[in-house]
Amino acid sequence: MSKLVPPHGGKGLTLCLLHGSELVAEKERAEGLKKIEITPGERGDLIMMGIGGFSPLTRFMNKADWQSVCEKFMLSDGTFWPVPVMMTATKEDADAISVGNDIALVCNGELMATMKVDEKFEMTEDMKRKECELVYKGEGEDSADDKFWDVAPEDHPGVIRVLNRKPYCLAGEVKVLSEGEFPTKFKDIYLRPAETRAIFEEKGWSTVAALQLRNPMHRSHEYLCKIAVEVCDGVIIHSLIGALKPGDIPADVRVKCIDTLVKGYFVDDNVVQGGYPLDMRYAGPREALLHATFRQNYGVSRMIIGRDHAGVGDFYGMFEAQEIFDRIPYASYEDACKVPGKALLCQPLKIDWTFYCHKCDGMASMRTCPHGKDDRVILSGTKLRKMLSEGGDIPDHFGRDEVLAILREYYEGLTEKVEIKMQKAASGEAMK
Amino acid sequence: MSKLVPPHGGKGLTLCLLHGSELVAEKERAEGLKKIEITPGERGDLIMMGIGGFSPLTRFMNKADWQSVCEKFMLSDGTFWPVPVMMTATKEDADAISVGNDIALVCNGELMATMKVDEKFEMTEDMKRKECELVYKGEGEDSADDKFWDVAPEDHPGVIRVLNRKPYCLAGEVKVLSEGEFPTKFKDIYLRPAETRAIFEEKGWSTVAALQLRNPMHRSHEYLCKIAVEVCDGVIIHSLIGALKPGDIPADVRVKCIDTLVKGYFVDDNVVQGGYPLDMRYAGPREALLHATFRQNYGVSRMIIGRDHAGVGDFYGMFEAQEIFDRIPYASYEDACKVPGKALLCQPLKIDWTFYCHKCDGMASMRTCPHGKDDRVILSGTKLRKMLSEGGDIPDHFGRDEVLAILREYYEGLTEKVEIKMQKAASGEAMK
Repeated sequence: MSKLVPPHGGKGLTLCLLHGSELVAEKERAEGLKKIEITPGERGDLIMMGIGGFSPLTRFMNKADWQSVCEKFMLSDGTFWPVPVMMTATKEDADAISVGNDIALVCNGELMATMKVDEKFEMTEDMKRKECELVYKGEGEDSADDKFWDVAPEDHPGVIRVLNRKPYCLAGEVKVLSEGEFPTKFKDIYLRPAETRAIFEEKGWSTVAALQLRNPMHRSHEYLCKIAVEVCDGVIIHSLIGALKPGDIPADVRVKCIDTLVKGYFVDDNVVQGGYPLDMRYAGPREALLHATFRQNYGVSRMIIGRDHAGVGDFYGMFEAQEIFDRIPYASYEDACKVPGKALLCQPLKIDWTFYCHKCDGMASMRTCPHGKDDRVILSGTKLRKMLSEGGDIPDHFGRDEVLAILREYYEGLTEKVEIKMQKAASGEAMK
Repeated sequence: MSKLVPPHGGKGLTLCLLHGSELVAEKERAEGLKKIEITPGERGDLIMMGIGGFSPLTRFMNKADWQSVCEKFMLSDGTFWPVPVMMTATKEDADAISVGNDIALVCNGELMATMKVDEKFEMTEDMKRKECELVYKGEGEDSADDKFWDVAPEDHPGVIRVLNRKPYCLAGEVKVLSEGEFPTKFKDIYLRPAETRAIFEEKGWSTVAALQLRNPMHRSHEYLCKIAVEVCDGVIIHSLIGALKPGDIPADVRVKCIDTLVKGYFVDDNVVQGGYPLDMRYAGPREALLHATFRQNYGVSRMIIGRDHAGVGDFYGMFEAQEIFDRIPYASYEDACKVPGKALLCQPLKIDWTFYCHKCDGMASMRTCPHGKDDRVILSGTKLRKMLSEGGDIPDHFGRDEVLAILREYYEGLTEKVEIKMQKAASGEAMK
C-alpha cells in the first residue's frame, strides 16, 4: 500500500483525459459538436482536470459550487476547494446552447475537450466583483479597502482575468482530449500526478515537500528546498510551465537553472524536478491553498510556503499565504478525521524570509538570524534583473555562479534581440 | 485551550511532588518509616515522576510492567513506555519489608520520597541480562551477537547500571519530597513541565521542537536547532543536568556555551533553554524514545533525533535511534487515533549527520550536500578535546569563536587543576 498522502477528495486520482480508441472516437464525435473557444487559463485548468491534478474535480463549476468556493472554501458537497474553476462563454454562444447539449472546447484552433453542459448561468459584473473581493483581495497595501478597486484592474493580472470573463458560464463534466504542447515541449519535466506518485513510491518516500517555482532558483529557494530535504523524505521542485505575466523568465531557462543547481548542490536522490501545466492566477493566499490542494494529488504532503507566495504587487501581506492555512475550514488533521476525504491533507511548510548572512556564516531566515541588515545579502528581483542585464557584479553568496551564468546568457540574448530589432527598424527606416 | 501536545498517557501532568503543609506532614511521617537507600539514577527517575516529567508514571514499576516494557514497549495497561523505571533493594532490606508497608526513600542522606510498596520481586541475574539484551542491545558493531556480552559490561555504562542493580525490586506509588539540588544549583535553567508549557503558551507556540543536549553545543547542534526553528514555532534547547559518564563536560560549562550561542546567533524569541534532572542511560534507540516521551510532557511535539542519539561506543547503528520510531507500536498518528491517550504523540524530527561544507558555503547534512569529504569540516569529539586542551587551532567554521573560548577556558582550568595536584603531590613527596 502506498505510504503517500492520498489524492484530494477521497476518490483517488480522477482522470478524465482520454486515451487510445476512446480518444479517437471522442475526437470524431467532437467534430459534429458546437465548438466553443476557451481561454488559455481555462485550458490549463482543463488539462489539470484531465491528468487528475485537480482531483476530485472533473467538471467546470456550476453556480452553487462557484458561490460555495468563494464564500466557504468548499464545493457545494463540502469538499475543500479554494478557487473557482469556471468556463465562460459569450452571450451568443450561451444562447445557442441548451442544458443537456454536448459541446467541444477549442483553444487557439486545437480541440481540447468535450463537455456535457448541465448548467448555464450569467456571470454578472456583480458576481465578478464579488469573486475578486472574496478570492483575490488580500490584506496587503494594494488591497486596502479604499484602494483595491483603483489599483486592481490595472495591476492585478488575476483580477483582470476575472473581470475580462465572458458574460456566461457553462458547467458540466469534461472529457479531455489533449494535453497541448506540454508532453512534447517540456518532455523532460512534464510529469502527471500518477507519474510523480510512481517516482516517489519507487524512492520509498512517504513525506514529500514541494517547492512552487515560477522564478529562477537562487540560494534562497535552494535553502527552502534544503530545509524540506532535511525534514521530509524528499522534495519536488515543481515549476509552473503554463503562462506567466510579461517580463517573467520563460520556463526553459528556469528549468536549465534548476538542472544546474540540482547537479552541483543537491544530493540527486532526494530531489525530483517536475513541471505542471497551469497558468498563474496571482491569487496569493487562495492560490497557496490551490497549490497545496493540487500538490496533494501529485503525492505531496508538505507545501513549502515562503514569503508572498503567489503574490503580485503589494496586494497581499508578506505571510498572508501562510496564515490562511490556520483559518480555513477543513484543513487541520482533526478536521480530516471528522470529514474523511473532504479535508485538505497537504500541510504547509511555512518558512520565513530567507537570505545569506555573513555573521551567521550561511543561509538563514528572519526566524533564525538575529543580525542586522548590513550583514545580510538581500537583492530585489528588479535590482537583480538590472544587474544581470547590464552585466554588473552580483553580490557574493547571493546565487550560485553556474546559475547566474545561465541567467546572464539569457539576458544578453534578450539584449541582442532588442538590438537586432532596433537595427532592423533603423535599416528599414534608411531604406524608405 | 492549550494548542500544545497533551502530556503523555491521557491523564494530564501527573504530579506527585508534595508542597507546603502536605510536604511538611509527609516528611514528618517519613521519619517513622523504614529508610531505603536509592541510587542516584533512581533519584533522577523519582524527581522526574515528582514534577510530571514521566507522566503518567507515578510509581516504580512492578514485574508485569517491567516485562511488558522490555518486550512490548508498553506498560501492562497498554500505554506506550520505552524503558523500565525500577527501584531496587538489597536482600536484607527486601526481607524486612512486606507488601502494604510504607517506606522512605533516601539518597546520600537526603530524604527523597515515600512509597507504598505494593509488590516485591526478585530481579534475577537472568532478568537483568534479559533487560540488557532487550533494552540496551542495538545493531551497532559492539552489539554484534558474538560481541555484546564481551564488550558491554565494561564499556556500556547503562548495562553496568542494570547489572549492578540490587537483587530485589520494590514497586509502588511514590510521593516525592524533594527535587534535590536542581532548583538551586541550576536555578536559571531548571524548568518543570508545567513551567515550559506555560512559557510555550505565553509565546503562542503550538509546535515545539526539543534538542537533547549533553555535550557542548557546536555549529552542528546549532544547525539542528535552526532547522527546527524554521519548521516549528520554537525550539527548547534541553540539557541533561543529571549525571553523565566521566570525562563529559559539566552542565554549568555547557549552559554557559548555550547562553553565549543563543545570545549571538539565535533570534531570542524562538528559543528557550531548559534543563531536566535525569541521568543518561545511554540506551540509544530506546532512550531516544524516552526522550520523546518525557519531552511530550514538557509540551514538545517534535524531538530532534540526530546521529547516534543517546549512544555510547559503537553499540548502536548511526541512525538506529531514528529508525526505531517507525517500528514501535503506538507511535503513529493513526495509532494515536485508535488508542487515545496510550500512544506517543511527540514525533521525531530526524536529521542526518550535519557539518559545514565549503562548497555548499554553509551548514549542510549528508542529505543535502553532494560534495566530498575534503570540502567538509568534520572533527571527532576526541580530536576536538585534544585541540582545545592543547591550545591548538580549531578549523574555521567548526564552532562559534565565543563558544570555543569558553571551552578553552574550561580545559585550561582542568590542566591547571591537574598541575596543582601534581605540584602538591611532588611537594608532598619532597617533604617526606
